[in-house]
Amino acid sequence: MRGLYCDGSSVRLRRDLPAPQPADGEVVVEVRAVGICDTDIQLARGYMGFRGVLGHEFVGRTETGRRVTAEINNACRRCPTCLAGRPQHCPNRSVLGILNHDGAMADRVAVPSWNLHEVPDAIDDHQAVFIEPLAAAFRITEQVALNPGVRMAVLGDGKLGMLCAWVARSAGAEVHLIGKHAEKLGLAGEGVTTHTLDEADGLSRSFAVVADCTGSKSGLPTALKLVEPCGTVVLKTTVAGEYTADLAPIVIDEVRVIGSRCGPFPKAIAALAAGAVDVRPLIGAVFPLDDAEAAFAAAGSKGAKKVLLDVTA
Amino acid sequence: MRGLYCDGSSVRLRRDLPAPQPADGEVVVEVRAVGICDTDIQLARGYMGFRGVLGHEFVGRTETGRRVTAEINNACRRCPTCLAGRPQHCPNRSVLGILNHDGAMADRVAVPSWNLHEVPDAIDDHQAVFIEPLAAAFRITEQVALNPGVRMAVLGDGKLGMLCAWVARSAGAEVHLIGKHAEKLGLAGEGVTTHTLDEADGLSRSFAVVADCTGSKSGLPTALKLVEPCGTVVLKTTVAGEYTADLAPIVIDEVRVIGSRCGPFPKAIAALAAGAVDVRPLIGAVFPLDDAEAAFAAAGSKGAKKVLLDVTA
Repeated sequence: MRGLYCDGSSVRLRRDLPAPQPADGEVVVEVRAVGICDTDIQLARGYMGFRGVLGHEFVGRTETGRRVTAEINNACRRCPTCLAGRPQHCPNRSVLGILNHDGAMADRVAVPSWNLHEVPDAIDDHQAVFIEPLAAAFRITEQVALNPGVRMAVLGDGKLGMLCAWVARSAGAEVHLIGKHAEKLGLAGEGVTTHTLDEADGLSRSFAVVADCTGSKSGLPTALKLVEPCGTVVLKTTVAGEYTADLAPIVIDEVRVIGSRCGPFPKAIAALAAGAVDVRPLIGAVFPLDDAEAAFAAAGSKGAKKVLLDVTA
Repeated sequence: MRGLYCDGSSVRLRRDLPAPQPADGEVVVEVRAVGICDTDIQLARGYMGFRGVLGHEFVGRTETGRRVTAEINNACRRCPTCLAGRPQHCPNRSVLGILNHDGAMADRVAVPSWNLHEVPDAIDDHQAVFIEPLAAAFRITEQVALNPGVRMAVLGDGKLGMLCAWVARSAGAEVHLIGKHAEKLGLAGEGVTTHTLDEADGLSRSFAVVADCTGSKSGLPTALKLVEPCGTVVLKTTVAGEYTADLAPIVIDEVRVIGSRCGPFPKAIAALAAGAVDVRPLIGAVFPLDDAEAAFAAAGSKGAKKVLLDVTA
């Protein structure tokens, strides 16, 4: 079968891949569409040492005809961490297209049946690839109270920043999106106040919650300037390598810094199905799987919107 | 009057200081005893640019004969932060012996009357100087649930580490104290498991809560190794200057990092009065105020126990 293969320094469309061999409890899904995310681009540069088929944001059809997507952490479901209700942190886990498990940029992918979520007809294939990143944005609502009136800043006008801003808006928070690019900020839409980084200088210590979605080492120091005493900084993006930062404000201002990763698929599916979040403005291009290498290059270009692979094309 | 004066690069016992001029709402307290803490030693080296009389851990007597100690943040009580119930974070505050306000290493000190706490007879003068740092340790119990059975590590076998370990023990947590010095770890007493740093290598990812009381840049990276996924790291000590650390584990393991500063005086007073925490083993030496410079040198020596000034001597 076809699949976009990562060898740790580049990606290549292979046509000679064996069909996925489902492990115990896994089912094979015929992929319909799959998104390319910044993590994929980092993996292709050697992050985490991944070798295999990329892709963890997808929609497809099972052999029984169900239209589905899947959570990405394949937990052992037996260890103390799993039994404590944190399978996303299972130390024995593989992660779809990221860690020890082939992903979905291929004709077919194997996933554990208990990770599947049905995708309602109201969500088309292109929207459905956003379920995984939108769930990650919803993770914030499980960690921080974003009640109406809570003043929140989202740092970073990329795709994840936009999803977080929209999720926070849907929760009722007073959302401010802060980024570098006026044209990207323009996508935020009604109900989200936007600022360029320069404008944000006047907003010091004024936000109860700041979500760092920059993927940049400048994100945390900027967040610590914007957050109010006893406020919360949510780190949504990992930054490879070492930070150099003055962390004394965390202690002096008693700030909480919370790491935030994968989130609740049902909330993301419900929001998309109800139209509470419209992800379509984030789509930049759709390529057939045969053009996956070109798609990957397009996704990696500076400021790119979301690039999708249509595997049915 | 006499007072230990910090000029930003050294300390000097002066005998020519004017009597404190109480501001609106302040009362004058005759100091009986005062502790020297690591913050004082950092202030004497130029931290925060403080000029004035040092000292923020004290007990004394008001003109009306009440035996008292005082909280250290002198808030304006009018700004939005104060009105939101966070006077410790008032942007207009002065801080006793730390920021724009003379401290208590002197014959007399002026403090706002609303910051006073009565010290019961069950707590002698030497124990009473621990009320402030013990309250800071109790701050953790306001931020993190230390229920019975919670596995907690305290990093750092200095005075603050020991107080945090004892507070956590009194809350019912399963406490592990991790430090560099076998003789200091020996002070921990019953109900606290102790480990040297080397031994702690085998304890990775096994603690729900880790409190960093090291005052060292190695504290946070070590804490991130010891904490379990979705666990909490409490930063009790500020580290001046920039950190260089890999913070990706915060995101990947969804760790919460919480800054923790000043705490509830009533809880500290109650614990000392009831004998739930016995601070006497932490006292290394007591000097008269006339020997304050020698006391300061003793407090700054490596591995020193708590040094007190007895102002009545």
